[in-house]
Amino acid sequence: MYNYVGKSLPRQDGYDKVTGAGVFTHDVRLPDMLHAKVLRSPHAHARILSIDTSEALALEGVRAVVTWENSPRVLFNASDAHTGTMPPNKPVLDQYVFDNVVRYVGDEVAAVAALTPGLAEKACGLIKVEYEVLPAVFDPLEAMEEGAPDVHKTELKNTPVPPFQIAIGNFQEAYESSEYKVDVSMKVPVQKHAQLETNAAVADYRDGRLTVYSTTQSVHPTKQILALIMGMPESKVRVLNPPYVGGAFGVRCGLSAKAEPIAAILSRMANKPVRCVYDREEDFIASDSRHSGYLQAKLGADKDGVFQALEIRGVLNKGAYTSFGVEVVGVMCAMSLAIYRVPNVACHGRTVYTNVQAGGAMRGFGNPQGTAVVEMAVDAMAKKLNMDPKEIRLKNILEAGDPWCLPFMNSSTALAECIEKAAERIKWSEKRNAFKAGKIRRGVGLAVGNHVSNAWPFCVDFDSVYLRLEADGSLQLATGVPDIGQGSGTTLMQVAAEALGSEFETVAITFSDTETTPFDVGSHASRTLYAVGICILEAAKDLKRQVLEYTAAMWGARAEDLTLERGVIRGAGGETPLRELCREAHLLSKEFIAVGRTTPPNAPSWHAHAAEVEVDTETGMVRVVKYVAAHDCGTAVNPQIVEGQIEGGVAMGIGYALREEIVRDEEGVPYNNGYHKYMLATAGDMPEIEAIIVECSDGSGPFGAKGVGESAMVPSAPAILAAVEDAVGVRYGEMPLTPERVLNGLR
Amino acid sequence: MYNYVGKSLPRQDGYDKVTGAGVFTHDVRLPDMLHAKVLRSPHAHARILSIDTSEALALEGVRAVVTWENSPRVLFNASDAHTGTMPPNKPVLDQYVFDNVVRYVGDEVAAVAALTPGLAEKACGLIKVEYEVLPAVFDPLEAMEEGAPDVHKTELKNTPVPPFQIAIGNFQEAYESSEYKVDVSMKVPVQKHAQLETNAAVADYRDGRLTVYSTTQSVHPTKQILALIMGMPESKVRVLNPPYVGGAFGVRCGLSAKAEPIAAILSRMANKPVRCVYDREEDFIASDSRHSGYLQAKLGADKDGVFQALEIRGVLNKGAYTSFGVEVVGVMCAMSLAIYRVPNVACHGRTVYTNVQAGGAMRGFGNPQGTAVVEMAVDAMAKKLNMDPKEIRLKNILEAGDPWCLPFMNSSTALAECIEKAAERIKWSEKRNAFKAGKIRRGVGLAVGNHVSNAWPFCVDFDSVYLRLEADGSLQLATGVPDIGQGSGTTLMQVAAEALGSEFETVAITFSDTETTPFDVGSHASRTLYAVGICILEAAKDLKRQVLEYTAAMWGARAEDLTLERGVIRGAGGETPLRELCREAHLLSKEFIAVGRTTPPNAPSWHAHAAEVEVDTETGMVRVVKYVAAHDCGTAVNPQIVEGQIEGGVAMGIGYALREEIVRDEEGVPYNNGYHKYMLATAGDMPEIEAIIVECSDGSGPFGAKGVGESAMVPSAPAILAAVEDAVGVRYGEMPLTPERVLNGLR
Repeated sequence: MYNYVGKSLPRQDGYDKVTGAGVFTHDVRLPDMLHAKVLRSPHAHARILSIDTSEALALEGVRAVVTWENSPRVLFNASDAHTGTMPPNKPVLDQYVFDNVVRYVGDEVAAVAALTPGLAEKACGLIKVEYEVLPAVFDPLEAMEEGAPDVHKTELKNTPVPPFQIAIGNFQEAYESSEYKVDVSMKVPVQKHAQLETNAAVADYRDGRLTVYSTTQSVHPTKQILALIMGMPESKVRVLNPPYVGGAFGVRCGLSAKAEPIAAILSRMANKPVRCVYDREEDFIASDSRHSGYLQAKLGADKDGVFQALEIRGVLNKGAYTSFGVEVVGVMCAMSLAIYRVPNVACHGRTVYTNVQAGGAMRGFGNPQGTAVVEMAVDAMAKKLNMDPKEIRLKNILEAGDPWCLPFMNSSTALAECIEKAAERIKWSEKRNAFKAGKIRRGVGLAVGNHVSNAWPFCVDFDSVYLRLEADGSLQLATGVPDIGQGSGTTLMQVAAEALGSEFETVAITFSDTETTPFDVGSHASRTLYAVGICILEAAKDLKRQVLEYTAAMWGARAEDLTLERGVIRGAGGETPLRELCREAHLLSKEFIAVGRTTPPNAPSWHAHAAEVEVDTETGMVRVVKYVAAHDCGTAVNPQIVEGQIEGGVAMGIGYALREEIVRDEEGVPYNNGYHKYMLATAGDMPEIEAIIVECSDGSGPFGAKGVGESAMVPSAPAILAAVEDAVGVRYGEMPLTPERVLNGLR
Repeated sequence: MYNYVGKSLPRQDGYDKVTGAGVFTHDVRLPDMLHAKVLRSPHAHARILSIDTSEALALEGVRAVVTWENSPRVLFNASDAHTGTMPPNKPVLDQYVFDNVVRYVGDEVAAVAALTPGLAEKACGLIKVEYEVLPAVFDPLEAMEEGAPDVHKTELKNTPVPPFQIAIGNFQEAYESSEYKVDVSMKVPVQKHAQLETNAAVADYRDGRLTVYSTTQSVHPTKQILALIMGMPESKVRVLNPPYVGGAFGVRCGLSAKAEPIAAILSRMANKPVRCVYDREEDFIASDSRHSGYLQAKLGADKDGVFQALEIRGVLNKGAYTSFGVEVVGVMCAMSLAIYRVPNVACHGRTVYTNVQAGGAMRGFGNPQGTAVVEMAVDAMAKKLNMDPKEIRLKNILEAGDPWCLPFMNSSTALAECIEKAAERIKWSEKRNAFKAGKIRRGVGLAVGNHVSNAWPFCVDFDSVYLRLEADGSLQLATGVPDIGQGSGTTLMQVAAEALGSEFETVAITFSDTETTPFDVGSHASRTLYAVGICILEAAKDLKRQVLEYTAAMWGARAEDLTLERGVIRGAGGETPLRELCREAHLLSKEFIAVGRTTPPNAPSWHAHAAEVEVDTETGMVRVVKYVAAHDCGTAVNPQIVEGQIEGGVAMGIGYALREEIVRDEEGVPYNNGYHKYMLATAGDMPEIEAIIVECSDGSGPFGAKGVGESAMVPSAPAILAAVEDAVGVRYGEMPLTPERVLNGLR
């Protein structure tokens, strides 16, 4: 039994957020601060023939105007991939802060710093740009065709890197010789993070040093990219959250769109702090999205429904710049092959440049796309075999220790239990294949999956932390990892208190500031608690050793006979509060400090989701009426926070399945550029969600914890699609299931 | 030869300070911040019978009013002594934030937080206080008498701790049997720091956590005192400089007067950030001063002028609260016995409560008082023996290795060289004892001394630092030590770059924030470069070892064959920039981090000052016309910064000798409560100052550096007094030498 792990302790950021006292990047105001506005391309593809900024510069109150002509000519990748891709791969650097070619509607053309946002906006309007409009391409399949416009010069048509491939066994042979075969396709949409706080940065360049308050979810990688762009040593670039971030979901792994470099360059030009806060429209049209694309899964099984062969093929729409395109397609392929025990697997994933905003990291990172088509194939196979979708899954899912295609061990799984619990709570046996008729029809669906607990060994993924005891025995934890709203500040404190044996009430955390914390790769890949927690454990072990050895030396005892729990050292007949020990040590010039340094292992987290939907066959409206999400997240360090993650993931999955999509007109102009035009699932759309935590401890994580941040997003869309199929008998191959598409299918 | 040590590199804070962009506590503005004003006692000693705050609270815009009745009843000591006094001594805790007895004119009675400073001021005027005025005592000799008013209840009349005493050999016997004896006395004034930025704090209490921007010169001890007062774990209290501090000179070792607790308590009451900035008058009358007092020195010598016996006796005016009273009297006694080789020494120092503002830490910390009377005795002895004051000093000064009364080794000295150089540059042999007559008379004087390089082993005195290489090989140094204007940020970066072998241009420093740096005792006791530098050296050694071992493993070489200098690793036939090595290591999840932890040793820094003065025998005005200050500060890491310290110390010494004094009326009300009424020596009063650096490397310090921050203040007053005596033939026993006193002496 633990003292703090497994308890739903109140969130440490709760007070600040509930009272409005918490500081976000949007709230940062520096003395003499200027305001930036960005001029964006109205064209999907064009060459800038000339830019005349003279009128803008002449406007009173304007302090600097930047274009491709007076900004650093440094190629970069705006995502963490910039610094995080593992050797021998190299990050694809295909972006300037400003270029003389614009590649999507919304691409940056110029920016202005002025005394007020209004003046900056007005000055943007005074910049005269002469464009040579170039032919554009928006669909990745079209972009691969010969003769299509080239977004960048690449060896393989519009493709930044060779296709991602895995081949184990002999898929082709096994598939052809399988008794049962299915071949399904899925078209997935552009989903947008739609996080509450728009991308933003406040930069203060001064005398060779740069400080940037930012909405980034990875301060250290952001610092590295900025240092490269600005031509500065990393040590002179400080990036920090102030400390709160209003949601992220992947949109700011690396740069917060280009808010940081734009603010930084303007600050250096104007010699004043510069605030660059994207408005909602900019945030929608000019920051990364989830990759849309075309997916296909082929699945072969024997007569008993035992899977023999599985292949995933996908073409993702990369958009204009690579961002995380390389990694997302890899995760999409690899993770969807890592759910079932299949002797012959293959995948082929391609990421293709087009003239739309970049696809990048978003909760699930390719896994929702891949899982959607795999789970569709499994359901199709069940139907073909006339098996229960639940049973065919239980028969084929991987067990712990089974070999798989991922480069880390399949170390634990409670997926079978998750499936059983989800099915039981949704009343699977009663509701599945129940009689459906009439205007409103109900159905239930099931989908399962697996996700990582960090990005290792796909990308650079490590952390270091400082742990330090104050002279009164209270504990200071310093980590570079942002808390982007998921509550990691609280859970990491729980881990630290438990690991050292502190009183929770005396633990404090500082986070997300590159100047004051050692390297951390960021808050993404469901890694924060798992990876940083492991690092804290390592530091706490060392710190505890120091404390107990010091005490033992004072007592003439042996350290191994002593314990430290809830702030009290006991053993060898003695007992002393940590508070007193530290005070005495302080007076003798002794401070207890430990550094945790580790590259985390990885651990699979498993999940089974069951959805019940109601389909209005007249209007085509689909409503999720009940949702069960069973998650093997290892040990739930703070169950309430885990439930929050699960509920949030389900909400995003409902949006993905039924509502959310960015569509563009024939010129590449997005229709959905704000909350009013982008159909986020809101509170009114939420069903009753039952979050079930199935604790299957993985030895690798802190107190057995595994990742959970992304996984609830992964299987939710296929579970809903399966429920719709159960309700109306139609298998839909395109998301989101808008009323129009539902009705089209019904006809 | 060093790459960076010994070079006058530009100060890192120069740009910020010259352009006005640097942020000081006075500049900090937080959202929704309230403003505090303090109601102070008009009486030197009184009991508060009642306080009625109802009218103040009813004033619109007032958010909180605090008095002794609703504030923490926690006794503390406002100085670092609170947490820094070494066992078995215990700090004297004799102060509340607000008490029901006021003990000097200016003592805190109540404070108000309101929407504007004006409202807070107005509300203070509405607080009704009923006092029972008590008899007061202002002079420490009177305070020791039976029947004098008791400031606190103490065993020995108005004395917080037993007298400080040292006895080596047998002073009494040796003195009596000495062929030549002198017995001199000196009365020293209350000198005030008069630093530019008044004491100030901005506190933000929120949900169990407290952040305080403060003018403190010791953020970690300040945090410890605040945690005790507020009843919070130290980890939840963050104290930081923002980062600049507008001078300190000892006035904010620990609390910045009471600005921090007043702001913190009001913030907790009002649930808003609170800014408490003392105005100039408050700063003068309600913060620590240099201890005034009465000193006596008895010196015995044989016929050749060889010293046989020396005794110092002193009674210091402690004022109303202990602050650093215990430690100052100890340093005063001990340091003044540690200049000359004397077989029989004794001292007796007493610190006595009175009803004036507290005496505390101030540049020199007792040493200027003690050195003044010892140097006066030495000059008197020279006169008696008809010896040259320079020669008698050269004959008697301690040599390295000589035993002395201090609890660390007398490890190095270039005092003899300092004396020779100072004498040569002032043209001693030509000007001393030259014929004087007429209205304006000139004279030269000499004084010598010794000071510490940190407070160990008198007080707790240690540091830890973090050193960390970024992925591009640039270096991050984190230290808790404030840069209070002396330029330590720059010199510590020089030490770090030199010690590791970095390029200076890639080094960054973060400092003075308790949340993000390990413990550091503060910027005082001339310790910053010496003590923190030693700590950096330790960390750099470890970091270099890590880097070279990593390189060696990659190269298949031996680490001991490799070198790192100016950012390049060389040896074993290889060569690689640190930048590239760190990039490769980063991609393999390797980060280089080191923690430096050390209790510094101590090292004496020596100095000889020679002054030439002009005395107007009609007006009594004394003008210093030429000044030579020769300092053995070990290695000068940044000579220009050392010269700045020396010049600043001399300016303060001139003020101490000739101009500065806080005097009070018979009710204890100070006359000198601002820059207009307190006669600081300004630019127009400065002579040509020749700062001579005599580099006598002490093996213990970083690259041989020793302390220099305080020492120029130590011998300057006696050098000037000696010059006045040389000019007019009068030995003055009271400072400052105001025209009135000069004329009185001439009569």
